[in-house]
Amino acid sequence: MKKANKKANAAIIIIGNEILSGRTQDVNVVSLSKWLNELGVRLEEVRIIPDLEDSIINTINEVRKKFNYVFTTGGIGPTHDDITSRSVAKAFNLIYGYHKKAYEMLENYYKPENFNEGRKKMAMLPDKAELIFNPSSTAPGFIVDNVYCLPGVPSILESMLGGLNNKIKGGKKILSKTINLRTVESEIALALEKVQNKFKNIEIGSYPFFRQGKIGVSVVIRSTEKNLIKKCVNEIKNFIKKKKIKILARK
Amino acid sequence: MKKANKKANAAIIIIGNEILSGRTQDVNVVSLSKWLNELGVRLEEVRIIPDLEDSIINTINEVRKKFNYVFTTGGIGPTHDDITSRSVAKAFNLIYGYHKKAYEMLENYYKPENFNEGRKKMAMLPDKAELIFNPSSTAPGFIVDNVYCLPGVPSILESMLGGLNNKIKGGKKILSKTINLRTVESEIALALEKVQNKFKNIEIGSYPFFRQGKIGVSVVIRSTEKNLIKKCVNEIKNFIKKKKIKILARK
Repeated sequence: MKKANKKANAAIIIIGNEILSGRTQDVNVVSLSKWLNELGVRLEEVRIIPDLEDSIINTINEVRKKFNYVFTTGGIGPTHDDITSRSVAKAFNLIYGYHKKAYEMLENYYKPENFNEGRKKMAMLPDKAELIFNPSSTAPGFIVDNVYCLPGVPSILESMLGGLNNKIKGGKKILSKTINLRTVESEIALALEKVQNKFKNIEIGSYPFFRQGKIGVSVVIRSTEKNLIKKCVNEIKNFIKKKKIKILARK
Repeated sequence: MKKANKKANAAIIIIGNEILSGRTQDVNVVSLSKWLNELGVRLEEVRIIPDLEDSIINTINEVRKKFNYVFTTGGIGPTHDDITSRSVAKAFNLIYGYHKKAYEMLENYYKPENFNEGRKKMAMLPDKAELIFNPSSTAPGFIVDNVYCLPGVPSILESMLGGLNNKIKGGKKILSKTINLRTVESEIALALEKVQNKFKNIEIGSYPFFRQGKIGVSVVIRSTEKNLIKKCVNEIKNFIKKKKIKILARK
């Protein structure tokens, strides 16, 4: 395990042709990111790559050196296109074979007559991998060094995150405030930039929206420091008041 | 422009803290990918990166050498966090300033009293950039070499793709067939692997699904060759019949 990080960061590697082909809408980035915010880990990059061994190996070996935590999603199922476990073993020069504990868990879960080759394959992992418990369907995820391998099915992935909370050494929880305004971006751009320049360590985002035929802008303020966010929100409110812009909602 | 490619490929760079923070669900990958399939361009990688100049410059300069086409989304609006145009200029060592044609288009679109600094900023582009027409809200995207810069707002992005069709030299349209089965992945894993081994140039994916409490598997066959897909589908149907697995739907 890594030491506690003041500023822990993470990357996600989404492994799956089905995402690249446009067949499947990824939703795992949003759930992983929200979970990481709570743990005080900043998601700083996502890569979506195909089910190709070289691509997986190279991406993992590049990304794991740059970030404190790497999460992969997808490719740990029973079929021929599930090659994440084997590729991670190769990336770390580990032996790929039946993982005793994973095998036992799956053997206990399935009736003997249903414990077929495909299901046994889900126990094939890099040796020395630490297992990630799967309360939905048993087939475990696994950890090698700072790389956490999770399944692609969103409901199963989500059910596995709780069990990881104690493994992740994050920093302060990343907080955010949103102010929704009845205005257009160009109307507040200069004033907002001034506030951003004053609060260098706060992340201020401006996002136009279109709802029920009406336009508006969401201003999002992100930081680990509640007080800083408050000060920043006040500055924004000041110029909004001067400009006579309507605040729609704030959360 | 690049020459026509027999096997054209592409990468997408999504620029935006709002995607990494989990605030916003990206949907542009799916629409760009489906559009690229039609044009015979294979999407091979996606990167999601923050609104940071170094990150944008480095990613663009890495990715544009690896792929025939690079599409960026986000960061071309009027606010301080919109830094894609400036970063692309730096990546290509081009001057960043008012683009005459873009400026004129925006000047014509807005009433003089509404053509403020923020809106003028949307005309600041790398010099020599070729414009991408925006039928929704005028502010153009732009092309530098093989890098195509598009907005992040999905409806605006989508409205701009049609205008690019003639610029992209793709290959054969990428076709796909889906067979939905009432089975579990492990039941078909070995048989499916045999088919995959027989059809090396076809992409066969297996994806479990859960609908209305019932489980199933979608087998997706992808190729530019209609005949090969047909042969492959027949092989799959053969083993499905032998295994007495129910076909649910096929599209």
